[in-house]
Amino acid sequence: MVLPTGYVRIGDMIYLHASTGAGYLCSVDGEPVCVTITHLDGIVYARSVFHHSMNYRSAVVHGIAHRVTDPEEKWSALRAIVEHLAPGSWTYARQPDRRELAATAVLAVSLAEASVKIRTGPPKDDADDLEVGGRWAGVLPVRNAFDPPEPDPTSAVDGLVPAHVASRVNPRPRNGAPTDHVR
Amino acid sequence: MVLPTGYVRIGDMIYLHASTGAGYLCSVDGEPVCVTITHLDGIVYARSVFHHSMNYRSAVVHGIAHRVTDPEEKWSALRAIVEHLAPGSWTYARQPDRRELAATAVLAVSLAEASVKIRTGPPKDDADDLEVGGRWAGVLPVRNAFDPPEPDPTSAVDGLVPAHVASRVNPRPRNGAPTDHVR
Repeated sequence: MVLPTGYVRIGDMIYLHASTGAGYLCSVDGEPVCVTITHLDGIVYARSVFHHSMNYRSAVVHGIAHRVTDPEEKWSALRAIVEHLAPGSWTYARQPDRRELAATAVLAVSLAEASVKIRTGPPKDDADDLEVGGRWAGVLPVRNAFDPPEPDPTSAVDGLVPAHVASRVNPRPRNGAPTDHVR
Repeated sequence: MVLPTGYVRIGDMIYLHASTGAGYLCSVDGEPVCVTITHLDGIVYARSVFHHSMNYRSAVVHGIAHRVTDPEEKWSALRAIVEHLAPGSWTYARQPDRRELAATAVLAVSLAEASVKIRTGPPKDDADDLEVGGRWAGVLPVRNAFDPPEPDPTSAVDGLVPAHVASRVNPRPRNGAPTDHVR
């Protein structure tokens, strides 16, 4: 059983969260789990099909999942998970009340047993293919891009997108002036 | 054990490939596996932290992995895997020779036992939070974007990027003229 989920890293721990109603994540409390996170960084084009590849950063974590019961650790983990997904939302949106906290389970997995695999750089072609020549080879960089935000149709606030959302679409230059809102 | 890998779907099958030297994928020949594929489509911003979410399409496939031994099925699967990763590369690059084919294992998993989970659309906020108002909510669309290709430094062909690569960076308009090469 492999399932996609949100996560965050704090120090030497990975935190996952789930609805207590969903059950699947809660059922692994105290059980061994494997957590895998992969970022695709590029498509590697070689002279030969055989040497085509991907540039990526991948982590594989093995550990026992422990449900977080300490209220402060749970609060910190939830804040970090939200800020990982949507930076700025923890302070902008309404924070969880007691009922919502009870409906949310947080699991912690230690990073003590973790391995990382990374591929970077250009293709590695055979000498024969390099000699023959005539074929382009290189890397096509891949990244997550954000398109213009789509406001909730039920929204009373018309088109004002707050800066913590708008800035993800067109990140301001390092020395540029901040923009508070975009339409 | 969960590992990232390339894949392709052909009809009712998922195909994965691996180096015969790597061993990990080959070792699951005849064994039950779980294959999970997730596309992140958007970050869902709600009025409350609790209702923050993600829009996504996720497939979870359970089945027995079978190593493909039929040469035609293996050839078709490899072509499809390459064309999924790098459309156009199968005909542009040098195709696999006998040695390279022997070094590559292909595994097939039936889609007979598969489930799909999808979230789309705007956030679902509590009525109380809608009444209070004052907070923006909506969806920030997410997609894979390609940055300008980085030619292999050892390349004899200088800056000519073939169309099947260049067109991924700036997809030409539906009725636009084709461009063969870009610098």
